[in-house]
Amino acid sequence: MELNQLLGRIVDEVAPLRGSGVVADYIPALARVDPAHFGIAIADLEGRVRGVGDWQMPFSVQSISKVFTLALVLAGSDEALWRRVGREPSGNAFNSLIQLEHERGIPRNPFINAGALTVTDELISQVGDASGELLAFLRTESGNPDLRVDAEVAASEAAHADRNLALTHFMASYGNMRNPVATVLDQYVRQCSIEMSCRDLALAGRFLAAHGVRRDGSELLTRRQAKRVNAIMLTCGTYDAAGDFAYRVGIPGKSGVGGGILAIVPGRCAIAVWSPGLDARGNSVAGVAALDHFTTLTGWSIF
Amino acid sequence: MELNQLLGRIVDEVAPLRGSGVVADYIPALARVDPAHFGIAIADLEGRVRGVGDWQMPFSVQSISKVFTLALVLAGSDEALWRRVGREPSGNAFNSLIQLEHERGIPRNPFINAGALTVTDELISQVGDASGELLAFLRTESGNPDLRVDAEVAASEAAHADRNLALTHFMASYGNMRNPVATVLDQYVRQCSIEMSCRDLALAGRFLAAHGVRRDGSELLTRRQAKRVNAIMLTCGTYDAAGDFAYRVGIPGKSGVGGGILAIVPGRCAIAVWSPGLDARGNSVAGVAALDHFTTLTGWSIF
Amino acid sequence: MELNQLLGRIVDEVAPLRGSGVVADYIPALARVDPAHFGIAIADLEGRVRGVGDWQMPFSVQSISKVFTLALVLAGSDEALWRRVGREPSGNAFNSLIQLEHERGIPRNPFINAGALTVTDELISQVGDASGELLAFLRTESGNPDLRVDAEVAASEAAHADRNLALTHFMASYGNMRNPVATVLDQYVRQCSIEMSCRDLALAGRFLAAHGVRRDGSELLTRRQAKRVNAIMLTCGTYDAAGDFAYRVGIPGKSGVGGGILAIVPGRCAIAVWSPGLDARGNSVAGVAALDHFTTLTGWSIF
Amino acid sequence: MELNQLLGRIVDEVAPLRGSGVVADYIPALARVDPAHFGIAIADLEGRVRGVGDWQMPFSVQSISKVFTLALVLAGSDEALWRRVGREPSGNAFNSLIQLEHERGIPRNPFINAGALTVTDELISQVGDASGELLAFLRTESGNPDLRVDAEVAASEAAHADRNLALTHFMASYGNMRNPVATVLDQYVRQCSIEMSCRDLALAGRFLAAHGVRRDGSELLTRRQAKRVNAIMLTCGTYDAAGDFAYRVGIPGKSGVGGGILAIVPGRCAIAVWSPGLDARGNSVAGVAALDHFTTLTGWSIF
Repeated sequence: MELNQLLGRIVDEVAPLRGSGVVADYIPALARVDPAHFGIAIADLEGRVRGVGDWQMPFSVQSISKVFTLALVLAGSDEALWRRVGREPSGNAFNSLIQLEHERGIPRNPFINAGALTVTDELISQVGDASGELLAFLRTESGNPDLRVDAEVAASEAAHADRNLALTHFMASYGNMRNPVATVLDQYVRQCSIEMSCRDLALAGRFLAAHGVRRDGSELLTRRQAKRVNAIMLTCGTYDAAGDFAYRVGIPGKSGVGGGILAIVPGRCAIAVWSPGLDARGNSVAGVAALDHFTTLTGWSIF
Repeated sequence: MELNQLLGRIVDEVAPLRGSGVVADYIPALARVDPAHFGIAIADLEGRVRGVGDWQMPFSVQSISKVFTLALVLAGSDEALWRRVGREPSGNAFNSLIQLEHERGIPRNPFINAGALTVTDELISQVGDASGELLAFLRTESGNPDLRVDAEVAASEAAHADRNLALTHFMASYGNMRNPVATVLDQYVRQCSIEMSCRDLALAGRFLAAHGVRRDGSELLTRRQAKRVNAIMLTCGTYDAAGDFAYRVGIPGKSGVGGGILAIVPGRCAIAVWSPGLDARGNSVAGVAALDHFTTLTGWSIF
Repeated sequence: MELNQLLGRIVDEVAPLRGSGVVADYIPALARVDPAHFGIAIADLEGRVRGVGDWQMPFSVQSISKVFTLALVLAGSDEALWRRVGREPSGNAFNSLIQLEHERGIPRNPFINAGALTVTDELISQVGDASGELLAFLRTESGNPDLRVDAEVAASEAAHADRNLALTHFMASYGNMRNPVATVLDQYVRQCSIEMSCRDLALAGRFLAAHGVRRDGSELLTRRQAKRVNAIMLTCGTYDAAGDFAYRVGIPGKSGVGGGILAIVPGRCAIAVWSPGLDARGNSVAGVAALDHFTTLTGWSIF
Repeated sequence: MELNQLLGRIVDEVAPLRGSGVVADYIPALARVDPAHFGIAIADLEGRVRGVGDWQMPFSVQSISKVFTLALVLAGSDEALWRRVGREPSGNAFNSLIQLEHERGIPRNPFINAGALTVTDELISQVGDASGELLAFLRTESGNPDLRVDAEVAASEAAHADRNLALTHFMASYGNMRNPVATVLDQYVRQCSIEMSCRDLALAGRFLAAHGVRRDGSELLTRRQAKRVNAIMLTCGTYDAAGDFAYRVGIPGKSGVGGGILAIVPGRCAIAVWSPGLDARGNSVAGVAALDHFTTLTGWSIF
């Protein structure tokens, strides 16, 4: 099937689901987004990008930023991080403290909030301005110099950060925090509050399909590292639905409560979808369905 | 690299690890196995099998049987099972009751003991003699009519079944057991006590690489179902080390405390390794290392 | 206030609560009891007993039997038991496996089901026929030779024993069970299925008010042991409501899902109340209220 | 036995235990205290106080302050508090987040850290300067105008407050915090850092033995409220050893990691003991032993 045709078919298939689910409502800036939005974009290895629907409309990337932060930390120092955070699926809600207490302050993986806070802390130690570094990377890879932190979202997130502050202080109490809690939270919140479109996201995630090689041909991650990030996306990328996502969709993916999902077909392409209505486990209803259709229609499941 | 050369290289690489780890010692029949054994076999889509080391020596498949029981149940009835068992990684030790209580008697996935007991219960409801059905399937696929349940192992397992009896009664207390606890346990123990070699296992697992098609060309599972079994193997197949296995090895695999691992390269081949020394999470030390080398040398990681 | 007047006053006070709550319905024999029953009896140190309402009507003692089984085990061997069971409140539902797994098969206290199964196991090791020994003791202390196990209740309990079988096998898997699981369950079920009236219960529990001395003047428990049983009743006797019971009522008490409660005023008297309607935590609504009025009217809270 | 003789006997009995256990070492000011200290003081209802050993030497009261803060809040508003905190024993380590998550931000009881933080928050809402109010109360009851917050201890506590900050932010994330987290922590830390001697403590706790009546004859708590505070001390006052404390000692008690314990014999006296060596559950080794001897020698167990 030709790409335009494929994208059109997916839009048709998910049309009945647009507006399904519940928009994240813990901060006003997310709560007022229209749940009926839907966009999808695909970036190939050469950096060509195609999309349909609201694929050029910016949205809050939220937890999808965790993938890029992890990649930047691994690019800087491969193994230091893994003494501070695990690589196992969490088997619990994405912000649970229970597992964290049971495992004495070592988060299960880099994609639950606790783990991402650790990754952010590590990136701060490496580069100082973690969110600035992230933004610079995203701008270059997407070719969009206008990418920015949404100040209103960031302020709202900071004002509703009690759970994340609890996680960070808790890890600090186990000695698993290098920088001041306030600094880590500030940087973390800024990363989550970056606005990107499906187009931007697909281009920015392309390097994970390209075995770690950036758009300009330089290597961000080794082939082995890129595979490993993809593996963690598959086993841990969609909160407590990772098993189901692997079962239904069959490719690595990372979702955010803004309704976006970044998915990777290793060696082929990066796909970004966006639709703000979330299911009970925090993943975009129409977004997951779109990716399900995508792998069914292309046969590109990794399984 | 040619296949013989590849296998020889792997044997060399893991040689220093043979005898590492700890042999499962909860029953005498397992405890007395020499930890230095190592075998590996690869079966391609056409059903050709090659191996090196102790690849023709039978060992106790233990939890690897869970893959085949699941496939047989899915072949019989695709969706009934998923009301009784989940598809999410467990995030806890493989026989934990905590998650099971938290989720009111619904096991997280078919590969933890509780889930496999549910699958066995479902297969009993479908065919009566679940372990007989399983054995018949394994004999046909492996072409080895001598496959059998090791009676001594089965008797020992039955005499050390308190934990599994607790799990089964516990699920029964939530109404999630169709057949008598004693029947389910007996069938479960018999499945775990089947003896197979790496050669047998690779051939028996070949259908998962072949998108569900059996050796004789008939379809056991649809392409979609086969992908899904592979997805569950990847996310849940190696106890609480599934994330790490995906990270290091990068293909679906299911391990057993007998020291065996069955791994699948979708569309290419099935690999069986065996070495009885286990790491702290119950997976074969030399076996995991062998598969790590295999995907590095071939580049056949799915990521 | 004179005793008759006191009892009459309590009956009046709780009248509006009779029929409140929910009758235990997991077995038919309990489910069909009229929730409006209410009885109360008080036995003094001299063995005189007075009562009002349905105080002479037999009901299923259920978990109240745990107090007597504990006392009989302690009379036989003071310290052996405490290596197998703790003395701390459980902080969870009365039949939870979570705490038991966390503490590797050692139940938190003798009054949760797991702990009582351990105590029964210990009594079997001491005397063989644990429920026979218990019945003989209860007959002598109550002066009622007709006390018996209700065979229908026992049969129903045995047919709904999956949760308790899970607990027992689970403890056996940690090596914390001396006798066969089936034997322990049978004896446990028989103890729970004994029928007694408030009159019988108050007389049978009198020794705990009398510092361990039985009706005939012989010593079952030392003064120190009797105090300790009372302490465990206070901290662990009413499932996950022990703190609230201590707060409201202020004397040691042990409840059962049959709707009975045995309470002790050390050095003064034993009180038995019965009303089958239970609150959300499994304690008799009218029964707890009656004891609350009792300690308020008499000033006999231990605090 | 005459009081002087009793105290002398207790000192002799616990002499071999002085220096046993481990001094709290999470802050320097506590870590450098000599574990061999031992003091005991008894205050009767009339406000007479007697003591032996280091009974006039000030130490850090730490968690014992929780009893007084609770009493002050209850004096101000009896029932508001109980919608924000429970009255059940915790069944877990004293600072566990697990139970708190399971129960959605409602701490189990006022004496675990989370609960005490809630009580402090409530007292701030009532009076503003919670620690000032507490100090004023303690000075009046003890007749010691020199009582003060140890500034070094308070500063150290504040610098090691990550766990308590995690708890407070966590409750705030469930909407169970009225005042800013920083304010609550500051007041909480100041309360814990008050220095008192056994003499001061016994006099300050006397009102709990006197059914709520202060030294000057005024009523702080009603008789019913005082009983209830005593009940909570018994079921929740010694971390995860409350059951054992009730079993061995048999009177309400509240311990602190400074090595102090305040115990109450309702209607008779308040006892304060101090010895800095702690057992594995955070209670003074020699202190618990002294109280055990005390109730054995006097027969004043409430059971």
